[in-house]
Amino acid sequence: MDEIRAAADRISGRVRRTPVVTVEPSAFGHPVTLKLEHLQHTGSFKPRGSFNRLLSHTIPDTGVIAASGGNHGLAVAYAARELGVPAEVFVPETSSPVKVRRLVGYGARVTQVGRQYAEAYAASVERAAATGALVVHAYDDPEVQAGQGTVGLELAEQAPGVDTVVVAVGGGGLIGGIAAWYGGTVQVVAVEPHRAATLAGALAAGRPVDVDVDGVAADSLGARRISGLTLETAVATGVRSVLVDDKAIMDARQLLWDELRLAVEPGGAAALAALVGGAYQPATDERVAVVVCGANTDPADLAAVRSAS
Amino acid sequence: MDEIRAAADRISGRVRRTPVVTVEPSAFGHPVTLKLEHLQHTGSFKPRGSFNRLLSHTIPDTGVIAASGGNHGLAVAYAARELGVPAEVFVPETSSPVKVRRLVGYGARVTQVGRQYAEAYAASVERAAATGALVVHAYDDPEVQAGQGTVGLELAEQAPGVDTVVVAVGGGGLIGGIAAWYGGTVQVVAVEPHRAATLAGALAAGRPVDVDVDGVAADSLGARRISGLTLETAVATGVRSVLVDDKAIMDARQLLWDELRLAVEPGGAAALAALVGGAYQPATDERVAVVVCGANTDPADLAAVRSAS
Ligand SMILES: Cc1ncc(COP(=O)(O)O)c(C=O)c1O
Ligand SMILES: Cc1ncc(COP(=O)(O)O)c(C=O)c1O
Repeated sequence: MDEIRAAADRISGRVRRTPVVTVEPSAFGHPVTLKLEHLQHTGSFKPRGSFNRLLSHTIPDTGVIAASGGNHGLAVAYAARELGVPAEVFVPETSSPVKVRRLVGYGARVTQVGRQYAEAYAASVERAAATGALVVHAYDDPEVQAGQGTVGLELAEQAPGVDTVVVAVGGGGLIGGIAAWYGGTVQVVAVEPHRAATLAGALAAGRPVDVDVDGVAADSLGARRISGLTLETAVATGVRSVLVDDKAIMDARQLLWDELRLAVEPGGAAALAALVGGAYQPATDERVAVVVCGANTDPADLAAVRSAS
Repeated sequence: MDEIRAAADRISGRVRRTPVVTVEPSAFGHPVTLKLEHLQHTGSFKPRGSFNRLLSHTIPDTGVIAASGGNHGLAVAYAARELGVPAEVFVPETSSPVKVRRLVGYGARVTQVGRQYAEAYAASVERAAATGALVVHAYDDPEVQAGQGTVGLELAEQAPGVDTVVVAVGGGGLIGGIAAWYGGTVQVVAVEPHRAATLAGALAAGRPVDVDVDGVAADSLGARRISGLTLETAVATGVRSVLVDDKAIMDARQLLWDELRLAVEPGGAAALAALVGGAYQPATDERVAVVVCGANTDPADLAAVRSAS
């Protein structure tokens, strides 16, 4: 908690205090408070962790370095630009030109290496060893997790009475921070796609293990292995793990548009999918908050308006 | 103010308390607090006025009646469905099948009459005289305006220190309610498209006059004549009128997506357009709130991500 409080002070003014909205029972089958963290800079919560890491160090002249073709890369590039330091981002050769353009748009130097994320990551580590640049890991880092934990700190202020906080999990930076903030005082529910079950796999094995990754949310929730720090926090604070399938994720995404005109990416809708798909069934009086964590979607496939609210 | 307070009590639980978010100077050229009223049921502020009118009356068996192919029609149909009373909505024959389907989706009986809104409106009045149904005017009605004024009541609670509130104007229901709530204690800025300047025209003429209507926001801001009640309120409370062009509206709409991943309709971005296009230039220290009032847009034309935040 102290580290998260310190992170909040450190990154204050750099990140947005994203709003919450409380939605009536009819919309998602249960009343729910949404933390609209996808309205954050770059369209996801990730700048919180990046800023906290960058602002915790004297940045070398060679700048900062990260491996990610997704939201983490955008966040590192954005934070570096805001702080006036160079950023290098390693992405697989398979990354879409759109994503590469976005990174370049934030002023990052982009290097495309290998066919898989793991190869880009290895190249980034090698490069960092050569240049001395500050590495910003996407999730397996205490400073990054403390930054992401400020989502929990804000939510606790904005929605003080909640019993349960539902959070999507990739490598576990976001849930690691949020679970650390609450420290077991509320039920934290970890939501993962069936086909990217890094936390569920680790809880079953008692240690982080590699899992296969696939599905509609793989670009944001598709880390192959949970952070060891996150696993510790999850066990210590009693995080509950549930799994969702792609259909529930896409239904939740469409519902966020139909009911609230919120355009989010699949990973950003995964936590809500646990409620609308029934993987997590709250008790009648349970006060539930859900973190909406990413919006880097092409909104074209959201129908103009489908349903009822 | 008393009527707006009473309206807030009356419609409480039926409408969402929509959130606000404060956005740093770099995004829109000036720091601004956005009231995200487009997250309201049906995608606009309109249910506030509809619920207040419906809940202020014993509804006859013949139900309620409105003329509108747009957000007002949706809101009346939605409110009627929620309260379990029949709704009849008159729309021009030129209304898009999508809009008609949406109305039918809310359970309304839809009648298509004439080529212009005015003809549909005349037919709705005639029909109401025959059936005794409760007419819900889109803006020129004290109960409707008191309902819309609850946007102001909420905003005053959520952003107590603002100097200026910027609001888009069609027939003037929304700004009439908001200006009445603030009663001249903050500067209310009325934003209209050049080609739908009902309030500006009325302020110049000293009375409501018909104006020509055209442009990208015509479907939501395209009333031809300002409400007389709104004109009175605007004069009494010193509302300031500014005009924006279609380019500023579309730029503001795109910026809301690029900077915050908010997908809004042109009318929903018109108030912000006054800031980003320079029609309203706040003083350096001025604390400005902008009402984002509608999201019934097809998001397909919003690029995945263009810019910098
Ligand atoms: C939108 C979104 N949600 C959730 C996650 C998962 O975050 P974490 O890896 O910290 O668990 C990510 C990671 O990229 C993301 O982009
Ligand atoms: C999105 C949106 N904004 C603004 C307005 C204008 O409201 P009013 O007619 O109360 O001025 C409307 C009216 O339909 C609307 O739909």
